[in-house]
Amino acid sequence: MSKGLFITFEGGEGSGKTTQINRLAQNLAQKGHKVLTTREPGGTPEGEKIRDLLVRREGGNWTPIAETLLLFAARQMHVEKIIKPALEDGKIVISDRFYDSTTAYQGYGHGQDISIIENVRILSIGDFKPDLTLILDIDPQEGLRRSDRRLAAEQFQVKQREDRYEQLDVEFHERLRRGFLEIAGQEPERCHVIPALQDLDAVTAQIAEIVQTKIAG
Amino acid sequence: MSKGLFITFEGGEGSGKTTQINRLAQNLAQKGHKVLTTREPGGTPEGEKIRDLLVRREGGNWTPIAETLLLFAARQMHVEKIIKPALEDGKIVISDRFYDSTTAYQGYGHGQDISIIENVRILSIGDFKPDLTLILDIDPQEGLRRSDRRLAAEQFQVKQREDRYEQLDVEFHERLRRGFLEIAGQEPERCHVIPALQDLDAVTAQIAEIVQTKIAG
Repeated sequence: MSKGLFITFEGGEGSGKTTQINRLAQNLAQKGHKVLTTREPGGTPEGEKIRDLLVRREGGNWTPIAETLLLFAARQMHVEKIIKPALEDGKIVISDRFYDSTTAYQGYGHGQDISIIENVRILSIGDFKPDLTLILDIDPQEGLRRSDRRLAAEQFQVKQREDRYEQLDVEFHERLRRGFLEIAGQEPERCHVIPALQDLDAVTAQIAEIVQTKIAG
Repeated sequence: MSKGLFITFEGGEGSGKTTQINRLAQNLAQKGHKVLTTREPGGTPEGEKIRDLLVRREGGNWTPIAETLLLFAARQMHVEKIIKPALEDGKIVISDRFYDSTTAYQGYGHGQDISIIENVRILSIGDFKPDLTLILDIDPQEGLRRSDRRLAAEQFQVKQREDRYEQLDVEFHERLRRGFLEIAGQEPERCHVIPALQDLDAVTAQIAEIVQTKIAG
């Protein structure tokens, strides 16, 4: 249908998504591909407003179903205004999180009925799916330690206020991890689980190989 | 199920909803009822944030489906945190707009598929419905003239910036009116259409009678 390729990165806190996305984008650009990196929640001016409401907790305490509806409102616009046009233009689009995060966080994490999330997904974006989803898997204890070190390094600036998700407890992150692994188990064609505790370069190499296979395929 | 009574007011611009809601609330309070008035979009701190995004257009240009999802996110919290607890407490809850406005504005007005709006409604608030819906019906030309006069009287202050809905054209408001009348036609038990061009006191009296019959019934 589209000429480009849509790749999403998923995973818990401290799994190194940002680093790996930057490396992959650079690697693909060097090979002559047109690359667009984006993120969720966000990706459009409207979506960034939703991000403000949810991630920075400016808007109060949302229920899981309200969060799900807000996330898909932002996502629908992200897909229609940014992702699909870029794919039509032949770009490789790399998104830091996509709908699997809603299934994992609001569903497995916060207990929102997964079938309701699925229904909201279909109502808002139909059967639009990533071509490839890379799930960076990490033990939550280690992930949160890494995430804490990053916070410390950044001297508790913006990051600390922004990432309320990182303040949730280890048990929550265990459910999240299980969620991502179950999602991967259900769609093995689309989803690849990559152990994130390896050496950074080894993770980068593994991702590059999967992406090359997909491009070649 | 609940001990209270949930009344919603619907209608286009300039139909006099606010005046009639205030009169009804006062009338019921004088008769000893516990009354809560509220509004949509809004009704909770979270919902007011959504109102800011949609009505004051702070957040950009939302697609009709994104608007629908945002409105139901706010509505779900309004129902769970404000409306249901007040009904449980035996109050008469009067809301300035509820889900029929989404069907009319996003559906009939902006062309969003009505069945999708219905599905989002059921996913977010289930079968929760108003006990009574009063639709103030007015010819759009006259409604917009009234609305303009009000704007002029208010010297184009906050109102002008806020109510983008009022800036939409007459054709849009014709579709909106037809939408409200079709909704009323589908649920004649719940919905009462009240001609809003009569003398204000006549409208007030008609509303009082319908509400009394419902309370007695």
